[in-house]
Amino acid sequence: MENYPLTLHTVYERSQSLFAKKEIVSRTSSGIHRYTYADFGRRTKQLASALQCLGVDQGDRVATFAWNHHYHLEAYFAIPCMGAVLHTVNIRLSVEHIVYILNHAEDRFLLIDEGLLPLFEKIKDQLKTIEGYIILTDKKELPDTTLHPVYLYENLLEEADPLYKFPADIHENAPAGMCYTSATTGNPKGVVYTHRGIYLHSFGIGLADSLGLAERDTVMPIVPMFHVNAWGLPFASVWFGSKQVLPGPMPTPEALLRLIADEKVTIAAGVPTVWTAALKAQESLQADLSSLRAVICGGSAAPRALIESYEQQLKVPFFHAYGMTETTPLVTVARLKSYQEDLPPDEQYEIRATQGLLVPGLDMKIVGPRGEVAWNGQEMGEIWLRGPWVATEYYKDPRTQESFQDGWLQTGDIAVIDAEGFVKLVDRAKDLVKSGGEWISSLDLENALMAHPNVFEACVIGVPHPKWEERPLAFVVLKDAALQAGDKNELLHFLGNKFAKWWVPDDVIILEEIPRSSVGKFLKRALREQYQTYFTGN
Amino acid sequence: MENYPLTLHTVYERSQSLFAKKEIVSRTSSGIHRYTYADFGRRTKQLASALQCLGVDQGDRVATFAWNHHYHLEAYFAIPCMGAVLHTVNIRLSVEHIVYILNHAEDRFLLIDEGLLPLFEKIKDQLKTIEGYIILTDKKELPDTTLHPVYLYENLLEEADPLYKFPADIHENAPAGMCYTSATTGNPKGVVYTHRGIYLHSFGIGLADSLGLAERDTVMPIVPMFHVNAWGLPFASVWFGSKQVLPGPMPTPEALLRLIADEKVTIAAGVPTVWTAALKAQESLQADLSSLRAVICGGSAAPRALIESYEQQLKVPFFHAYGMTETTPLVTVARLKSYQEDLPPDEQYEIRATQGLLVPGLDMKIVGPRGEVAWNGQEMGEIWLRGPWVATEYYKDPRTQESFQDGWLQTGDIAVIDAEGFVKLVDRAKDLVKSGGEWISSLDLENALMAHPNVFEACVIGVPHPKWEERPLAFVVLKDAALQAGDKNELLHFLGNKFAKWWVPDDVIILEEIPRSSVGKFLKRALREQYQTYFTGN
Repeated sequence: MENYPLTLHTVYERSQSLFAKKEIVSRTSSGIHRYTYADFGRRTKQLASALQCLGVDQGDRVATFAWNHHYHLEAYFAIPCMGAVLHTVNIRLSVEHIVYILNHAEDRFLLIDEGLLPLFEKIKDQLKTIEGYIILTDKKELPDTTLHPVYLYENLLEEADPLYKFPADIHENAPAGMCYTSATTGNPKGVVYTHRGIYLHSFGIGLADSLGLAERDTVMPIVPMFHVNAWGLPFASVWFGSKQVLPGPMPTPEALLRLIADEKVTIAAGVPTVWTAALKAQESLQADLSSLRAVICGGSAAPRALIESYEQQLKVPFFHAYGMTETTPLVTVARLKSYQEDLPPDEQYEIRATQGLLVPGLDMKIVGPRGEVAWNGQEMGEIWLRGPWVATEYYKDPRTQESFQDGWLQTGDIAVIDAEGFVKLVDRAKDLVKSGGEWISSLDLENALMAHPNVFEACVIGVPHPKWEERPLAFVVLKDAALQAGDKNELLHFLGNKFAKWWVPDDVIILEEIPRSSVGKFLKRALREQYQTYFTGN
Repeated sequence: MENYPLTLHTVYERSQSLFAKKEIVSRTSSGIHRYTYADFGRRTKQLASALQCLGVDQGDRVATFAWNHHYHLEAYFAIPCMGAVLHTVNIRLSVEHIVYILNHAEDRFLLIDEGLLPLFEKIKDQLKTIEGYIILTDKKELPDTTLHPVYLYENLLEEADPLYKFPADIHENAPAGMCYTSATTGNPKGVVYTHRGIYLHSFGIGLADSLGLAERDTVMPIVPMFHVNAWGLPFASVWFGSKQVLPGPMPTPEALLRLIADEKVTIAAGVPTVWTAALKAQESLQADLSSLRAVICGGSAAPRALIESYEQQLKVPFFHAYGMTETTPLVTVARLKSYQEDLPPDEQYEIRATQGLLVPGLDMKIVGPRGEVAWNGQEMGEIWLRGPWVATEYYKDPRTQESFQDGWLQTGDIAVIDAEGFVKLVDRAKDLVKSGGEWISSLDLENALMAHPNVFEACVIGVPHPKWEERPLAFVVLKDAALQAGDKNELLHFLGNKFAKWWVPDDVIILEEIPRSSVGKFLKRALREQYQTYFTGN
């Protein structure tokens, strides 16, 4: 019993023995590509054989730089099952970070979408370990590129050994994949996924109380395969024999809605911005979404209104989930407990707008300034996690000691937890305001300010204070600049009606615009630097 | 990631943090007992503390001899979580076998239902390692018994340390439980379940494509907790927070049907004879079974007619499953693949009457006389299994080498497998007729004979043959003895129309009755001994 290894070979083999006829559909630049799990399985072994011929050994890192499609799915299994490590590179990172992580991971080969070649041509001279580029295309002629050496994917597969067998002796704790966080400061940090971790995470996704992924599902991961395993959906889909719909390069909201309708997708997963855009597009497109049994939304918090819109307007069940690169990623899913289904709809939506309940298998605590917090929906603490698919270190990175302690991952996410165990994110640890030993959520204050009719956007930071350590300072952009003069006191009064007195910011500063990062997030760091002496005066 | 142990502590803790309010209902001799998971959790720790006070150490075996109820459930978690080994003793075994397994397992204590004391009083002097008996009763006074020393369960719990904590350092490969097979010949063989094995099996039960056990379920294991972990349902129910209904001592079909109706059971599991009796009882009882989303039937093959009766008459979905003591036990579940739902109803029932598809996580091959068989629904082979919840040995038993080879369990079950992977049992290996290097299923011949209008019962065995190694010999009991004379040829002709010529038995012997074992099964062994020279003449 104890010696049977938990590896991706089990996952691959079941798909081949039981689901050979099931379909995998990819949206490519040249149209819809369809094939079966039998095709997928044959080509996956061919890819492994081809990589072996190129000299890839067990433990070697092989990188991918690609959208969601069948080539990428083949790499998802060929690379780990041959004993190598699938390193999915996030195509949205900055050029500097991409160079950093390829060098840091010491990737030997890169599988790359033809459409993404230009980016690599710019950085190729900075890459220290890449020995060759494999172009993911169905074309038989090499594109014009300065990368060298380059190989055509289909040519490699044609030349592969048709009798190739995966090695049978891969240990369950062997690395299967890796992914780097999209760091907001400093270089990205690498997370290694073991065979065992991915195996158990896939089990987690199949549980009726989490995503309940099943053979009868048609699964469309809109979340990219180049980041956090597309939430583990490709691995679990192969195990359970679900039909897969991979939406290819840069899918528009309309393309996604059409795929759902055409392929009768039953479960689709993406970030809130995707679902917001799809909701808008659906107004005019009116695609048939009746096949959808679940939309999964994660990556960042979805507004409650989005959940309500999907369920009430579109009649599509919408589930909030939470996770991160370090957790493979599934941590919580917001499903009601059975006895909560008698609550009034308003309370149900309030619960379902939280991040949800911890999935079976993981261990969690919420740690506040005085230890574990009470489960009262009020006390804030940082989410600490451990479990068989939670990382215990960053790959070759001294920053491990900042985030891991006694086997626990300190997520940096600040949350409250209610008496039933539903977790609700309230802030990032670095954005918390720490005032007199208590924590104040900048996010709560921002959300409250943004609900004021005159406020266009709001941002709150903690600023050093001689007596209280930090005090909150608010920044707002007003909808009508003419109103400025009297608004500061009005806004503080407005917050005073909603929060305890000590939560109310010591001042409100009215700006023309709030500084933003390249991806559009508030640059709180810039504000903190500029205003760090605002209360101390030196 | 790799160091986080897969133990029952994770299972227990989740039930306590998230499902404290959910209910566990037991049918006892004094009526219905109800309490919450919070009560269960507190008492489970008290039991562990009490056992520790009695001197139970990590690795020690503690036996139970009990029906399905909350006491037994507390033992299911207290004993493994304290690091000891839960040895559930099958109360239906012969007295000799019970003595054998308690001595063989070297159990130190026994938890025993008050109603089962008389049996143990008879054998107590033969037990070499038992140091005490803990009586599972809510009474505060000791019953009149010759067992010694005896303890009252509730008294022990009252005296337990309320601050007891489970040890945190139990290894995932540590033994958590054990169960002995109900051997047909020889002494029972012990199977040890590790924490990891039960943990992963519980995950398996929660998968949407197996049993899909969920928080919203109300689970009633009719299968006894004294054998093969009640199919793992108590462990999985605690993990997922399902309401549990434990039907107590000797439940009648009427009692079971009333429990389903009163407690709104959604999933109930039992052997075919239970479901046959319940079907009959329901004719007059007419209980409300509308809450049932699934009846799970295993332990032996359910006739297709039973599945049809439940679904067509009672409107209750009925699922066939397969497993054994050595496999924790779940191996296969007969659920249609999504694309099989378009088949005509007759073909659907034909598929659903098989043992079904291998659950995710296990590895299977069907090995015939010339190696792995083709997946054509025709070629017979023995089911070989391996995986994280499949045993790799019998506990301290030299018979390990007869059943295990290179990590595979050779189940002794003979099956065919169709092109879609559905497994169908056709015989036990020891009952196969091996004729000229080919296998003939005694069960198939028996079923065919019993379909003849004049045949009351039929039994087929392999008898040594000078040319063909073995040839089939049939025994029948006729419905009307007066018909005897001409019937032998008629029966052979009847079989000739259904089977290949070489399958047809060489002779049919008409008996008054077929010898049976104490539990009513055909004693094929007795017939084989009596007729072993029937074809050789010496």
